[in-house]
Amino acid sequence: MQSDIEELENKGKAVKAASRKLAHLPTEVKNKALLKIAESLISREQEILDANRLDYDEAKAAGMDEAMLDRLMLDSSRLQGIAQDVRTVASLPDPIGEAFDARTLPNRMRIERRRVPMGVIGVIYESRPNVTVDISSLCLKSGNAVILRGGKESIHSNSALARVIKDAIHEAGVPQDAVQFIESTERELVSHMLRMKDSIDVIIPRGGEGLVGFVTENAVMPVLASGVGICHTYVDSAADLDEAVAIAYNAKVQRPTVCNALDCLLVHNVVAERYLPMIAKEWAKAGVEMHCDERALRILSSFNPAPASDSDWGKEFLALIAAVKVVDSLDEALEHIERYSSKHSEAIITEDYTAAMRFLEEVDSSCVYVNASTRFTDGGQFGLGAEVGISTNKFHARGPMGLKELTTYKWVIMGSGQVRP
Amino acid sequence: MQSDIEELENKGKAVKAASRKLAHLPTEVKNKALLKIAESLISREQEILDANRLDYDEAKAAGMDEAMLDRLMLDSSRLQGIAQDVRTVASLPDPIGEAFDARTLPNRMRIERRRVPMGVIGVIYESRPNVTVDISSLCLKSGNAVILRGGKESIHSNSALARVIKDAIHEAGVPQDAVQFIESTERELVSHMLRMKDSIDVIIPRGGEGLVGFVTENAVMPVLASGVGICHTYVDSAADLDEAVAIAYNAKVQRPTVCNALDCLLVHNVVAERYLPMIAKEWAKAGVEMHCDERALRILSSFNPAPASDSDWGKEFLALIAAVKVVDSLDEALEHIERYSSKHSEAIITEDYTAAMRFLEEVDSSCVYVNASTRFTDGGQFGLGAEVGISTNKFHARGPMGLKELTTYKWVIMGSGQVRP
Repeated sequence: MQSDIEELENKGKAVKAASRKLAHLPTEVKNKALLKIAESLISREQEILDANRLDYDEAKAAGMDEAMLDRLMLDSSRLQGIAQDVRTVASLPDPIGEAFDARTLPNRMRIERRRVPMGVIGVIYESRPNVTVDISSLCLKSGNAVILRGGKESIHSNSALARVIKDAIHEAGVPQDAVQFIESTERELVSHMLRMKDSIDVIIPRGGEGLVGFVTENAVMPVLASGVGICHTYVDSAADLDEAVAIAYNAKVQRPTVCNALDCLLVHNVVAERYLPMIAKEWAKAGVEMHCDERALRILSSFNPAPASDSDWGKEFLALIAAVKVVDSLDEALEHIERYSSKHSEAIITEDYTAAMRFLEEVDSSCVYVNASTRFTDGGQFGLGAEVGISTNKFHARGPMGLKELTTYKWVIMGSGQVRP
Repeated sequence: MQSDIEELENKGKAVKAASRKLAHLPTEVKNKALLKIAESLISREQEILDANRLDYDEAKAAGMDEAMLDRLMLDSSRLQGIAQDVRTVASLPDPIGEAFDARTLPNRMRIERRRVPMGVIGVIYESRPNVTVDISSLCLKSGNAVILRGGKESIHSNSALARVIKDAIHEAGVPQDAVQFIESTERELVSHMLRMKDSIDVIIPRGGEGLVGFVTENAVMPVLASGVGICHTYVDSAADLDEAVAIAYNAKVQRPTVCNALDCLLVHNVVAERYLPMIAKEWAKAGVEMHCDERALRILSSFNPAPASDSDWGKEFLALIAAVKVVDSLDEALEHIERYSSKHSEAIITEDYTAAMRFLEEVDSSCVYVNASTRFTDGGQFGLGAEVGISTNKFHARGPMGLKELTTYKWVIMGSGQVRP
């Protein structure tokens, strides 16, 4: 354990030193390194898949469930996909060096904010080995060095991937120390890592609620965390009901296991009698289970819905389940959302201009929609090109986070002898 | 104590509820409230100065030193100044509602980031009562509600100022609960406040290093903190030496007690023999004490300088003292800065283009200067109109923080029936 901490401390020092070089690399060198990573993922496929097989077999023997095993598993086609994602990152514009708020002050000093990397990003993640490549490539592109701590279940896969990455960036002229992988899976190392503020500038936790919560509570450095999505769609009295069916169907069914899927459907009472059977019929075909409040229960009695319990409000289902509630007004919908949403994504379906504007103004969530599916909350869909995660915090970044959200800025002032009067 | 915590919790709930209304107030209502505060500070001068007199007398009797007493003291002219600052905040553009990155996505959804308030700002501060007004007005203008916890020494002054503010905003039609002042000065309340993440979105500590450190370590919500300034000025081999004298003189002498004043002067060896006596002569007139490394000590022997001890490097003097060191190269200067600076403000004095560009690129500080005094690091000087503080962190905001840094954004998406394919 003592030697593990020493190794961690040494890697921290090395990655910090490398970050100073990485921050000033030309875009073409960073892109060359990224393309080299993509190439090596293909050319060293066997080495990676062999390592992944070890993890897979151990996890299976230890009784890991099918869904988790599937997340852990790599094959040739998944590696191709991962490599393609790295090529996409290479093709994105480099955020570093962008100048903004640039101007000449009254005393003729030139001033600008210049976009620069954070420095060192620490990443703590669970079973999916693709995170190793995914986050490393986003950090590299944004000029950040990275220190990775993966889960025990994918240690062989992660270790192999980190080796491939380090070799590839070295060939491209990027310091190898810019990507550090922690080989030990001792649990205590995580707590130690969360206190290493001299070598880690920002921590990104990638995994379940437990991990994210632990990191957020214990890290002494800032945390860039993705939050839980408890997403509401409100069908207003003035909604186009066919559109409302298409949107609520898409929001719940298109990919129910993700954070931007619909969890709670709110329906205005003047359209509930007509609308609820319409959506219930479509949802029934897809196998969606409805947990209804009293009024919705009565309207939908022929569909045999379940009564909602208190815990159904404010619940992220991540499954083909939706809570359904009838409300008497836009105000009641807004209050329900204020109380139960996790401030991720909410939508109103309406043709009423004032209701739409009020919803956009008053709902305090990262992403607020009129007449569209909350499933669009995604870095790729929003045109960021890549996604580090979706923040439900208000500090630094909110909603989908791309490369820019891995950066900060410095003030650059070019004078000609100015002193303060 | 139990009742104090209950009061704090109740104020937390009230301020959170008020923040929802405050976020949507028109600019003209917010400005009206600000102008009303300025007016009341003048019209209720006697009430405020009487309360301040109580604090002052108690502090004096308790043996508070002159400098601290001076910070605590209010008089008619200081109140005029505080009122004028509030009028300045009223005259600034409202940051709320600004749209940025607005565009139409390929599927014809309209998307924008819209600037919105954080919600509730918690402020923990020490003796200066002007912070009560200063921060309240910045929060109000940026649509944030505020909960204030001032120091024990200025409790009567703060309480009177908070009363004046609450009455003034009420008259202007702003919910009184949007400004909450904690009357109890129990120390334990601070720790409790730092855990109230359901009602406080961001914490701002205003005071000495001890307070800022405690808040940063213990708050569970994000902290917007001003950092210590250990500021370097490097006189390059290609410096215009007269300019270098004017700038180093200004950076050290114009106001030595503030964070952006010069702490360490680095001088290239090829100009040290000529430059050091020039600056030493000027500094001597102002009473600046020099703590020199060996080479500077030898060059400046006729000025009787003190030898620098190890603790002089990386020290914020806040006084007419400067550490002085001769370096052999720009690289050595950069290394020294990397090691000892607090990442606040650093300057290079040079006529060499490449040296200037390298310094701007490689120094990882909030503000980097060529040929100008670090004393310019200030929200007002940078054109922000107002200043919340100067951040030496990299997250959310860096360097001088104005109204914009008290805000976040939400993504607003206006669709016409789009669903995710």
